[in-house]
Amino acid sequence: MSDMYDSILRLPIFLGLNSATLTSLLEKSAIQFLKYVNDDIIVTKGEDCTHLKFVVSGKIRIDNEVVTGKVNICEEFDAPNIIAPDYLFGRDTYYPYNVTSVGETSIMQISKTTFINVMMQHEICLINMLNLTSNRSQNTMNNLSFMSASDMKEKLSRWILNLTNKQGKNIQIKCKHKDLYTFFGMQRSVFINVLNDLRDNEIIDYNGSCIKLLDRYALKELCNDDIGTYIENNW
Amino acid sequence: MSDMYDSILRLPIFLGLNSATLTSLLEKSAIQFLKYVNDDIIVTKGEDCTHLKFVVSGKIRIDNEVVTGKVNICEEFDAPNIIAPDYLFGRDTYYPYNVTSVGETSIMQISKTTFINVMMQHEICLINMLNLTSNRSQNTMNNLSFMSASDMKEKLSRWILNLTNKQGKNIQIKCKHKDLYTFFGMQRSVFINVLNDLRDNEIIDYNGSCIKLLDRYALKELCNDDIGTYIENNW
Repeated sequence: MSDMYDSILRLPIFLGLNSATLTSLLEKSAIQFLKYVNDDIIVTKGEDCTHLKFVVSGKIRIDNEVVTGKVNICEEFDAPNIIAPDYLFGRDTYYPYNVTSVGETSIMQISKTTFINVMMQHEICLINMLNLTSNRSQNTMNNLSFMSASDMKEKLSRWILNLTNKQGKNIQIKCKHKDLYTFFGMQRSVFINVLNDLRDNEIIDYNGSCIKLLDRYALKELCNDDIGTYIENNW
Repeated sequence: MSDMYDSILRLPIFLGLNSATLTSLLEKSAIQFLKYVNDDIIVTKGEDCTHLKFVVSGKIRIDNEVVTGKVNICEEFDAPNIIAPDYLFGRDTYYPYNVTSVGETSIMQISKTTFINVMMQHEICLINMLNLTSNRSQNTMNNLSFMSASDMKEKLSRWILNLTNKQGKNIQIKCKHKDLYTFFGMQRSVFINVLNDLRDNEIIDYNGSCIKLLDRYALKELCNDDIGTYIENNW
C-alpha cells in the first residue's frame, strides 16, 4: 500500500503536495480503486470521460487510431500515469482511444465534480492540471514541423516522434505500408528504403502490417536540431 | 463603460457568471486597463506571459509564424477576446506570436497570481479556463487530417482551415510560393492551378508574397465531410 501511496504522490496532478495534505485530500474525497487483470478494457474509445483515472500500479496500453483510422499507434505506460487528462474538460469529453491493462493494474478514479472541488481547495492541483492541459495545447502549433523536413527519413522520424511519447514503451505503429507512404506522398520504393535503413541501424523492426520502435532515442538523434530537441523534450 | 462591461461578461472566461458576481470579482481583484492606439505593439513573440490579457474593446491583429518561420499567418480579432490563454500555464509561458492593435483598443489584464485566486473562488471561471485549454489540446490530434486528403485543393483548404480561426477577419497568409508548395510536396504548376481555381471562385486572392482569404466559409464547403465540419466547429 505504501508503494501505491508513493505512486500517487508522483502523479503529475499531485506533484508538490506534501504527504500529510495528500492523505487528508484522499480521505476527504470520494475516490474509487479499480482492479484489472491482464488485457482488461479500462476505457473504450468514445466512452464518456466522467472521471479522472490514475494508473497507480501496473501498466496500461493505449491504442490510438490516427490518419482517420488507417494507422494505429500502440504504446505502453507504467504507473504512475493519468489517462487522457485533457478530455475531462473541453468540447470532447469522451476518451479518444482504447486503454487496456497489461498485467495486473490498479486504477484510482475521481469524479469530475470531486476533482473540481480538489482543485478549488488545493492551488497546487489546480496549477498542475492547467500546466498539463496547456502543455498539450502548446504542442499543437509545433507538430507540423515534420512536414518541413525534406529528407524522407527525417520526415518519418519526426512524425513518429510527434505521435509517440518519451515515456511510451513497446511502441508499435500498425498500418498498411501503402496507407503510410500515401499519407506522406512518398513513393513505395523510397519508403521501403527508409524502413530498411532504420532497421539496419536497429532503430525499428517492421513487417507488412507493423513498425515496431526499438530505439526512440536514436530516432531523435536523426533530427538533431532545435526542433528535434523541442519535440523530444515535450512528447 | 457599460459597453465594456457587457464585453467583459461575454469573455469566455467569465461566461455564466452573473452580473453581480462579475462586479464583485472586478472590484476585489487587481486588474489593470491598458489603452492602445492604432498599430501599437500589445505583446511581442517570446515575451513572458505573466498576465491574462483580455481585449475588451477594439480589435487586435495576430502575426503567427508557422512552418519554422517561412509562413506568416495574420488574423484580426474583434473584442471580446483573450490573448493566448493557453500560454499562461504549461511549459512555454511566453507569447507564441506578435499581437498589435488595429485602431483604438483596450486591454484588461489580470496577473497570473490574481487569476489563480479568481479561479479558486469562482468555479465557473475555473471550468471555463480548463475548457479553453483542453479544447486547444484536443485539436492537436486532429490537425493532421489535411495530409490524408489526396486532392491538392482539399489539402491546401484543410491546412488553411486548421491554422486559422472562424472568428478571424482579414486573414492573410504571407509566404513565398516556393516555401508553401515545397512544404506540401506539390509541384509548382499544380499549386498555381489550385490558387487560380480558388481565386476564380472568389475564395482567395493572391500575389507573389501573400494569399488573402476572402471567404473562409466557402473554403470549408470544399471539405464538406465529417472532418471538414469537425475543423470548422473547432477552429
